[in-house]
Amino acid sequence: MTTQPRRSKITPEREQEFYEAALDLLREDGYEALTMEGVAARSRCGKSTLYRQWGTKQRLVAAALRGTRCVRLADIDTGTLEGDLRAVARSAALFSARDTSLTHALGHAVLQNPELLRALREALIEPEIAAINAMVRRAVERGEIAADNPAAEFVSVQLSGVIRARPMLEGLPADEAYLTRFIQASILPALIRRTATPS
Amino acid sequence: MTTQPRRSKITPEREQEFYEAALDLLREDGYEALTMEGVAARSRCGKSTLYRQWGTKQRLVAAALRGTRCVRLADIDTGTLEGDLRAVARSAALFSARDTSLTHALGHAVLQNPELLRALREALIEPEIAAINAMVRRAVERGEIAADNPAAEFVSVQLSGVIRARPMLEGLPADEAYLTRFIQASILPALIRRTATPS
Repeated sequence: MTTQPRRSKITPEREQEFYEAALDLLREDGYEALTMEGVAARSRCGKSTLYRQWGTKQRLVAAALRGTRCVRLADIDTGTLEGDLRAVARSAALFSARDTSLTHALGHAVLQNPELLRALREALIEPEIAAINAMVRRAVERGEIAADNPAAEFVSVQLSGVIRARPMLEGLPADEAYLTRFIQASILPALIRRTATPS
Repeated sequence: MTTQPRRSKITPEREQEFYEAALDLLREDGYEALTMEGVAARSRCGKSTLYRQWGTKQRLVAAALRGTRCVRLADIDTGTLEGDLRAVARSAALFSARDTSLTHALGHAVLQNPELLRALREALIEPEIAAINAMVRRAVERGEIAADNPAAEFVSVQLSGVIRARPMLEGLPADEAYLTRFIQASILPALIRRTATPS
């Protein structure tokens, strides 16, 4: 009885348009000011379409965060840790502006709204942590990093932290050149085995 | 004519009470919901007192951010970089909860309000960056860090980033034990000269 999936007349393309409209409005005016009516007007549909599909603005925003995620750090596998992290620098820089403005726009709302916080974490944060931790694990397996190197646990929080902190501290985005310098200067020296140590 | 400072009947102690009331309400309900009336009620004064002294809620919040700052990283000087950074870990952990909730509460408002963003940076961010950069400079002068070590520029952004990112990534505050492990595992190994290099 409940196995029959709910039928939706919305095509995936149209769904993406609703998601983009919701996130654009979110970035422009913040979460409090966002309304289903506003998203309907921006995407030229009746608001009943949105209510039927998502019910609340909270559910629409959560779906939009999940549905528009396109960084696929999990696909990166260049064969070296340095290559993997340079590829992260490329994609992270591409998407950090989007993520920063969304995080700011959601700001206080996520603190009061556990479902929204969970959606933000699932959409923006957890896939990146998992992908970076997998890169580090592969580097350990290849012998690039000592298995007991205590710096290994901090790679994802360091990258994520620097991407979030540079705009606050220096008023500049953490672009690819900056992240690449950071990876070379600070991340790799603490991780990579310097010399073959005699055993 | 304008050299005579404006007379205020508010004592420094009373001023601190207004500041704490404003920041408490800010953390509880966010910037949009904050009103001069609310601060007046919380601190049991007439709202005209607040209007006379600060004019707008924006100026009150900016003054409160500046006036309640009590981390004095600039006073830390233990004689070694490791000692200095461990002391940072102690104070940063103490204040990171306060700063994180304020940053979240101000969220979207700072993006639309340059005076507020400037106050946030002056009160919470710039004194810490300057203090950490001074620690690194002293370590270079003592010969603990090579003068051309490219990791030196990233110390403040890394510390600040990890403090902000850990709660997002792991749902846990960056407490003293965590920051100390991070400094030992990731920051110092990339900075400190390993051996006396022959010149």
